Amino acid sequence: MKRKSITAGLLSLGLPLAMAVSGIGTAAAQDHPELTGDDLERANTIYFQRCAGCHGTLRRGATGPDLLPETSKDLGQRRLERIIALGTEGGMNNFDGILDEEEITLIATYIQMEPVEPPEMSIAEMKDRWTVFVQPEDLPTEPQHDRNWENFFVTILRDAGQMGIIDGDTKEVVSKVDTGYAVHVAKESSDGRFWYTMGRDGRLSKIDLWMDPPQVTAEVWIAYDARDVAVSHYGEWQDKYVIGGGYWPPHFVITDADTLEPLKVVSTRGYNTDGEYVHEARVAALYNTPGAPTFLVNVKETGQIWQVDYSDIDNLRVEMIESKEFLHDGFFDRTGRYFQIAANFSHHMVFVDTHTRKRVGMLNTGEIPHPGPGANWDDPECGPVAGTVHLGEGRMTAWGNDPEGHPDRAWQTCFSVETDGPGLFLRTHPNSPHVWMDQTMHPEPDVNQWVMVMNKQTRELTPVQVTDLPAEYDAVATHMEYNQAGDEVWVSVWARGRGHLEAGEIVVFDDKTKEEKARIKGLETPTGKFNVYNRKKHIG
Amino acid sequence: MKRKSITAGLLSLGLPLAMAVSGIGTAAAQDHPELTGDDLERANTIYFQRCAGCHGTLRRGATGPDLLPETSKDLGQRRLERIIALGTEGGMNNFDGILDEEEITLIATYIQMEPVEPPEMSIAEMKDRWTVFVQPEDLPTEPQHDRNWENFFVTILRDAGQMGIIDGDTKEVVSKVDTGYAVHVAKESSDGRFWYTMGRDGRLSKIDLWMDPPQVTAEVWIAYDARDVAVSHYGEWQDKYVIGGGYWPPHFVITDADTLEPLKVVSTRGYNTDGEYVHEARVAALYNTPGAPTFLVNVKETGQIWQVDYSDIDNLRVEMIESKEFLHDGFFDRTGRYFQIAANFSHHMVFVDTHTRKRVGMLNTGEIPHPGPGANWDDPECGPVAGTVHLGEGRMTAWGNDPEGHPDRAWQTCFSVETDGPGLFLRTHPNSPHVWMDQTMHPEPDVNQWVMVMNKQTRELTPVQVTDLPAEYDAVATHMEYNQAGDEVWVSVWARGRGHLEAGEIVVFDDKTKEEKARIKGLETPTGKFNVYNRKKHIG
Repeated sequence: MKRKSITAGLLSLGLPLAMAVSGIGTAAAQDHPELTGDDLERANTIYFQRCAGCHGTLRRGATGPDLLPETSKDLGQRRLERIIALGTEGGMNNFDGILDEEEITLIATYIQMEPVEPPEMSIAEMKDRWTVFVQPEDLPTEPQHDRNWENFFVTILRDAGQMGIIDGDTKEVVSKVDTGYAVHVAKESSDGRFWYTMGRDGRLSKIDLWMDPPQVTAEVWIAYDARDVAVSHYGEWQDKYVIGGGYWPPHFVITDADTLEPLKVVSTRGYNTDGEYVHEARVAALYNTPGAPTFLVNVKETGQIWQVDYSDIDNLRVEMIESKEFLHDGFFDRTGRYFQIAANFSHHMVFVDTHTRKRVGMLNTGEIPHPGPGANWDDPECGPVAGTVHLGEGRMTAWGNDPEGHPDRAWQTCFSVETDGPGLFLRTHPNSPHVWMDQTMHPEPDVNQWVMVMNKQTRELTPVQVTDLPAEYDAVATHMEYNQAGDEVWVSVWARGRGHLEAGEIVVFDDKTKEEKARIKGLETPTGKFNVYNRKKHIG
Repeated sequence: MKRKSITAGLLSLGLPLAMAVSGIGTAAAQDHPELTGDDLERANTIYFQRCAGCHGTLRRGATGPDLLPETSKDLGQRRLERIIALGTEGGMNNFDGILDEEEITLIATYIQMEPVEPPEMSIAEMKDRWTVFVQPEDLPTEPQHDRNWENFFVTILRDAGQMGIIDGDTKEVVSKVDTGYAVHVAKESSDGRFWYTMGRDGRLSKIDLWMDPPQVTAEVWIAYDARDVAVSHYGEWQDKYVIGGGYWPPHFVITDADTLEPLKVVSTRGYNTDGEYVHEARVAALYNTPGAPTFLVNVKETGQIWQVDYSDIDNLRVEMIESKEFLHDGFFDRTGRYFQIAANFSHHMVFVDTHTRKRVGMLNTGEIPHPGPGANWDDPECGPVAGTVHLGEGRMTAWGNDPEGHPDRAWQTCFSVETDGPGLFLRTHPNSPHVWMDQTMHPEPDVNQWVMVMNKQTRELTPVQVTDLPAEYDAVATHMEYNQAGDEVWVSVWARGRGHLEAGEIVVFDDKTKEEKARIKGLETPTGKFNVYNRKKHIG
């Protein structure tokens, strides 16, 4: 299991949860629930991997409720175990297929203990955790292989802590490179050659696709818990800076894009839209803006979108744009001017004009919008539109996003279509007549192994099944990406069943016929896939 | 004594220091030093009033060293008492004349106890502590008295928690109004009618000079510990917003200038110039910029000067300008374009171009510069210059501040003159041939009861004694302000001797002859004085 080494990695970084919680005892219902030694270490790791995302590192609550001893001790060991195993109506996942009984017992005890605040991280500490494997001057000056690297799919292998580099022409896995754990997204240099990934463990990696095989050339830890990364693409700052965002500590770090040397750190702690101080104000998502020398830093718990100007980082201009909680994932319109992001638990999409650096709209789209990489296309009625699926309901909502050409439609719902279940991702391509969307969050395989394909002209949905998934795989289909030509759609399959993680795969569909065309096997939890050409050209 | 009521005020505001530290015991040297009840309450109040400014609310150190149990317990009760009573070579004041023996004992014990973090303060909590005494529509439409209110001196009566309103023509005390404790500065509306003060206790007050007598029309607590306030003066936002800055919580709050309703709160927690996180990143000083719709927010511990644009507070633009620690007090050049602020314990003045919103210079001026309201004048050699006295040495340093007309002199030392002792304030007026400076920080009355008067043309210093100060007053001269005409200089006298606080006074000198002209008595610790006309016209 990879998880073992991840725990060791966290501890070697000084994550102090294990060390700081003292006391003796074993996992059991008691007045002073305590864990020590290996049990505490395992509980820390499970909490970090499975729980902190929604409930917060400090357990003060975020998109999920707080898990502080005041409340959790009242519920008691047995009730907590049931909640963890079975989930709740309020949106909590069931973990009975993910954690075993012993792990559920551990976590139920753990969340009755006093939470411990992890340490801060200074620039000096980041530099101690910074390695350049290949100096910039030693990098190759041309590709070292003959592959069509612009049609590579840079693929997150979530639970393996790796990125799979897959040849889109031959469907071969070119290499798997070690990165941080559970990478959320990967972002490209402007020529598509270098890819930057942020692990959930705060490990920022730089990958060179020209090397044979592609490999990591530098890495730095900029936080203990993190999600996203972005690269400066504007004007003279093209490929000069990389920004990484921390969940803990809640800050962003601007690094040199060549070496990943950390240059600047800025705290995102602040006040939410109710004017309450948030100590754990996490950086959810980061983007470069195509039309300005700025990054967008989206702070989940405060609902603040910070447009951070990188043209002078010693006199750092920041537009602190107010919106709604909890900011999650966003994407640009087709012009690259307007940014569209989900304030997911407020059920809104928020729209920012990155030229004026101001908010221009907010739209209630339905329960918990989640666009992932998003999709932009032309609707016959509304003109340019974009859409999102929802975590909270089986629905895709599309809104107008052309304020110049269709001002009455801009930032208003154009239409919505019902799917069979809540999903995570949708995707399209200008060469395709379709928008593909998943139904990942539905509990039943009869739904979550199907994806929906919408005709852009008729808005009609066609369900497409991912077949040949043995029941013991407990498989789910998630995330779509087009190839360079826009005539194939790649769908990820997670084999979540215990002992079958390595059986994950990518199923390649012909976009026109919706027939399966190829299958790439032996991938542990393949998730986000990034086609080099489409991403560097901002296609979709 | 006023202090009693201040303690009660703090506690009624929920300052939790007293409540949160538990245990029993009395003031004494022991392994676990403890204070309870009245002793703890007194120690809290003394620490807040006398110690927190330099050592921090969290006692983690700021311009003074940390006072955490790890170090203070090693020193022990007796040694701590001696340090508090006698001061140190490193710059710590001696408190033997300020605190009695019992108070010194209390504080020596208190600083061996674990510090307790005070609570945050939300917008809702500020609104609970917000009172409008006179609704804006009920305010008079013309002055209700015949006094020449433009020559009023709005005067801080520091330890009384009051502002004295003094008629500059008649030298009468028109009224004393209750404000926050130990107001640091007062800032004016653009017509000079309204004055805004920030108490050290976080109490922001608005005073109307047109009422008879002048009185407080609204107040709001925006922090538990605070220093400064500023008013928006630019363009269409003239007199629209008032900003207050917190030491604890470390944030700034933008309020409606009419009613003081809190509208927006922004955290200033962040990273210092070494890239280390600062949890207590205190807002030291606030200014409106004459040439842009912005406030300057100076964060002491991070060395960050934030130029905060108030033209759209929902999409709040902030320039985070890096400089040096620890930012303290600043002033503009005569054009109002360039801002000049002391990074005092880095021994630098820092210069910001508020048009480009960037730092343009930094100058090592000598030990711990402290300009207070500052002074700008024409030097025969260097052209336009500004100057500062120093907390750390008897010196006034002047630098060129005309980058257009005298680019080679700009932000460089023009000259410096030695005085007899370290001081806090200097001041001049365009109608005056002089720059006056105090020597407040010298320990000897033979020096600190004298002020220095410099001839702008010859740079020669003439010492001027404030006479007739009985020895038991333990008096010190501090802070100068010119009258409207620029032919009088008002010097404050603190009567620090125990039981004589009420004997403080203001001594008025003829600027030309340097002879005493009048004396205004019965003022408790008069400190900063703000001549309405000079301040609203930015004269000096």
